[in-house]
Amino acid sequence: MRLSWPKSAAFSRTHYTRLGGINHVDGKNLPSKQTVAGITEQLLCLLFPGFFEEQLQHSSELKANTETLLNSVRASLEAEITKALEYNPPAGVTKKDARATAHSLALQFLGSLPSVRELLQTDIEAAFNGDPAALSREEVVVAYPFVECIGVQRLAHELYKKEVPLIPRIMTEWAHSRTGMDLHPGAKIGTHFFVDHGTGTVIGETTEIGNHVKMYQGVGLVARSLAAGQQLRGKKRHPTLEDHVTIYAGATIVGGETVVGAHSTIGASVFLTHSVPPHSLVVQEDPNVKILNKKERAADSLDWQI
Amino acid sequence: MRLSWPKSAAFSRTHYTRLGGINHVDGKNLPSKQTVAGITEQLLCLLFPGFFEEQLQHSSELKANTETLLNSVRASLEAEITKALEYNPPAGVTKKDARATAHSLALQFLGSLPSVRELLQTDIEAAFNGDPAALSREEVVVAYPFVECIGVQRLAHELYKKEVPLIPRIMTEWAHSRTGMDLHPGAKIGTHFFVDHGTGTVIGETTEIGNHVKMYQGVGLVARSLAAGQQLRGKKRHPTLEDHVTIYAGATIVGGETVVGAHSTIGASVFLTHSVPPHSLVVQEDPNVKILNKKERAADSLDWQI
Amino acid sequence: MRLSWPKSAAFSRTHYTRLGGINHVDGKNLPSKQTVAGITEQLLCLLFPGFFEEQLQHSSELKANTETLLNSVRASLEAEITKALEYNPPAGVTKKDARATAHSLALQFLGSLPSVRELLQTDIEAAFNGDPAALSREEVVVAYPFVECIGVQRLAHELYKKEVPLIPRIMTEWAHSRTGMDLHPGAKIGTHFFVDHGTGTVIGETTEIGNHVKMYQGVGLVARSLAAGQQLRGKKRHPTLEDHVTIYAGATIVGGETVVGAHSTIGASVFLTHSVPPHSLVVQEDPNVKILNKKERAADSLDWQI
Repeated sequence: MRLSWPKSAAFSRTHYTRLGGINHVDGKNLPSKQTVAGITEQLLCLLFPGFFEEQLQHSSELKANTETLLNSVRASLEAEITKALEYNPPAGVTKKDARATAHSLALQFLGSLPSVRELLQTDIEAAFNGDPAALSREEVVVAYPFVECIGVQRLAHELYKKEVPLIPRIMTEWAHSRTGMDLHPGAKIGTHFFVDHGTGTVIGETTEIGNHVKMYQGVGLVARSLAAGQQLRGKKRHPTLEDHVTIYAGATIVGGETVVGAHSTIGASVFLTHSVPPHSLVVQEDPNVKILNKKERAADSLDWQI
Repeated sequence: MRLSWPKSAAFSRTHYTRLGGINHVDGKNLPSKQTVAGITEQLLCLLFPGFFEEQLQHSSELKANTETLLNSVRASLEAEITKALEYNPPAGVTKKDARATAHSLALQFLGSLPSVRELLQTDIEAAFNGDPAALSREEVVVAYPFVECIGVQRLAHELYKKEVPLIPRIMTEWAHSRTGMDLHPGAKIGTHFFVDHGTGTVIGETTEIGNHVKMYQGVGLVARSLAAGQQLRGKKRHPTLEDHVTIYAGATIVGGETVVGAHSTIGASVFLTHSVPPHSLVVQEDPNVKILNKKERAADSLDWQI
Repeated sequence: MRLSWPKSAAFSRTHYTRLGGINHVDGKNLPSKQTVAGITEQLLCLLFPGFFEEQLQHSSELKANTETLLNSVRASLEAEITKALEYNPPAGVTKKDARATAHSLALQFLGSLPSVRELLQTDIEAAFNGDPAALSREEVVVAYPFVECIGVQRLAHELYKKEVPLIPRIMTEWAHSRTGMDLHPGAKIGTHFFVDHGTGTVIGETTEIGNHVKMYQGVGLVARSLAAGQQLRGKKRHPTLEDHVTIYAGATIVGGETVVGAHSTIGASVFLTHSVPPHSLVVQEDPNVKILNKKERAADSLDWQI
C-alpha cells in the first residue's frame, strides 16, 4: 500500500536539499553519542572498581578484569577519536594521520586514569566530610550523582586538554542528562571539590576553581551575554574561585574577570558581577516579611498578592 | 508455595476497590508513555537526519530512509492518537470516528514537519551565534540538550494546536526528564529561540515568546499560585516576552498580564511580577558584601553566619 | 596480541592497591543500583495499577497480577535488604540473622503499601486542584514527574524508618536522576503535597512538612553549611514547614530551627535563614528597573551592563 503524504514528497526530496545546516548527510561520520556513552560507563567502572558493576569484584580477578576493560575501552575510544579528528582536525593534525594520532591520544588518555583517580579520591573525601547525611564513603560513591558527574568531567577534561573535538562535550552532556549538572570539560577544577544535590549547577568552559570549594544545586558560573557571541571564543569568560569558597543554592556569578577571594561565602540567589576579596560574606538584602491581616487574607482568591 | 502477606489479601481485593482515582483499571487504554517516547525519537531523526542515528546517512538513501521512517511514525502515531481521542474526545469528535480522525490528524501533523524544521534551523543559528563555546553547528545539534528539547516542544505544539489529548504533554515530559527543561506544548515560541544549559527552566502553557529571545538555566515563566486553581483553565496565566529579550539564570516571571518589553534584560534571580517597558534592565538590589574579621572567622564552627 | 599500556601494569597492579577508599573490592556485596531500580519500577506499578504497564489492566486479572508482582518484588527486595544489612547492620541486628531480618522487613514494608497509596491519593488530588494545565487526574498520573518522585520518596521513607541502609537513598536518587527532584527518604511529608515542575527542588533529610504544602521548581529546604560536617549526623538540620505553606521557584530555606508558619507564602529566589510567623508573605526587595537610553544602547557590545 502506498501512502499519500500531504507534503511528504516535497519533504523528503526537496525539503532536505533546500534547508541545510541541520542535516548531516554525506558528511563525515560524527562520533556516536551512544558509543561515547558506553565508553564513559566503562571508564566509570575503571575509576571505581566494584561499584558500578553488577558482580562483586575479587582482588584475584581485578587484574584480569581491568585489562579486559582497558582493551575494550581503548579500541572503542580510538575509533571515536578517529571520527572526531577526521571531522575537525586540530592544528598540526592532517586528516591522513587521524588514526595514528587517535591511537596515541587514546593511550595517553588511559595513562592519565591513575591521576584522575587521585583527584576523585579527594572529591569523595570532601563529599563525605561535608554531608552529615552520608553514612559512609561507599554510600557517597553509590548514591551521590555528584560522583558520577565529577568523574566524567575530570575524564573529559583530559581529552579536552588534548584538543579532541566533540567527544569531551558529548561525555559531559551524557552526565548532564543523568545528573542535571552541566560541568564543561574545559573547566579547571582543584582538589576536594563537592557539589551537593547539584541539579541545575552550571560551570562554564573557562572557569577556574581552587581547592576545597563547595557548592550547591542551581549555582551558575557563567559568561556575560554579550552581543559579541562567537568572537569571544577562547577568551576567559567565566569566573575564578579561590580556595575554600562556599556557594549556596541558586547563586549566579558572571564574567571572566570576576574573582571570588579565598574563604568567601556566597549566599543563595545572589547575582554577583564583580570580584570580592578573601573572607567575604556576600548575601542578598534581607527579604521583606509582611504578616497578612484578616482583611488581606479574606480578599478574593488571595493567597498571593504583591 | 503460598505466601502469607500481612495485609496482602486486603490489599489486592478490597484496597484497590476502595481507593479509587489513582487506579486505571477497566478503563480505556491510555496512550503508552513508552510508545510515545519511541515515536518522539523517530521524529527527531526525521527533523535532524544523520544526527540521531548510529549509521551515517547518504543522500542516495535519504529518500528511502525517510519514507520508511514516515510510514513507521504514521502508523504508531495514529494508534496512539486513537487511544487519546477515545479517552478524551475533543468537542465535535465522537468516539465512533476516533480512528478516522486520528488518521487525518497524523497526516496533517506529518505535513507540518517541514515548517517545524524551518523554525528549528533558526534556533540552531541562535544557539551557535550566542555561545562562544560552540565550535560548529554540528556540535550544537549533537551536544546541546536544548536542541532536543525545543525540537520536541515544537512538535508537541503542533499536536496541541490540533487538540490531541495527553500525547503532547507525554512528549514534552519525556524531554523534561532527559534535559531538565519543562517547556509546555501550549507555549507559543517565536524564531531564533535559545535556552543555554537549560536545567530547571520552565515555560508555562499560555506563555508567548517573540523572536530572538535568549534565556538561561532555571528561568521560570509561570503562573501566580491562586486559590482559584482549576477555574483558571484556558485563561492566559503566563507572561509574554517581546522580541530580543534576554533572561539570566534563575529569574522568575509570573502572571498572564506581565509583558517584558522588547530588548529588555532581566538579571539573575529576579522575581518579576509586573510588566516592564522596552529596553528595560531589571536587576536585584546589589548584594551586601561584608569582609569577615579574624574574630568572626575564629568563632566556633563559623563559615556561615548571617 | 598483547598491548603495551603506558602505565597500565602499574595501574591495575599497584595503583588500585595503593589508592583505597574508592575501590570496592573483596568487600561485602553492596545492593545493586540496577536491581533496586527494577524493584522501584515494580512498586510504582503496584501503587498505580494500570498506569505504568504497557497493557491495559482488567479488574478480573487485577488480583492475580498483583500477587505475581508482590511475589516478585518481595523476593528481590529481600535479597537486596539482606545485602544492605550485611554491609552495615543496624544496632541490634547481627550479621547472622540478616536474612531473617530482611524477610521480616520486606513483608512489613509491603504491608505498608496501602497506607502509602492513601497518602499518594491526596498528593494527586492536590496536583490536580492546583494546576489549571491538568485536564484530568489521569493526566496527572501519566505526565507529572512529581507523581513518580513523591511515590518513590514515600516508599523509601518506609524503608528509612525501618533503618534499612543504602537502599532508600538509592531509590530516591533513581527518582532524582529521572525527575530532577532530590527528596531525601528521611523527610517527613504530610498529606496533599505538590511540587509543580520540580526540577532542582531539594528537600533535606530532617525536613518536616505539614499538610497542603505547595512548592515549585528549584526550591531548597537545606542545611547550613557548617564546618562541623559529619558531627551533625542525626541532628535536625533542615527547616519545618507548617500547613498550607506555598513556596515559589528558587527560594532557599536553611536551618533546623527555621519554622515557616502556617498559611505563609515565600516569594521566588528568597533566601530565608530564620523563622517567620503564620500568615507571612516573604518577598525579595523589588528589583531595580532602569530604562536604557539611546546612548547606553549604542555602547559597544552592550546588551548587558550593570
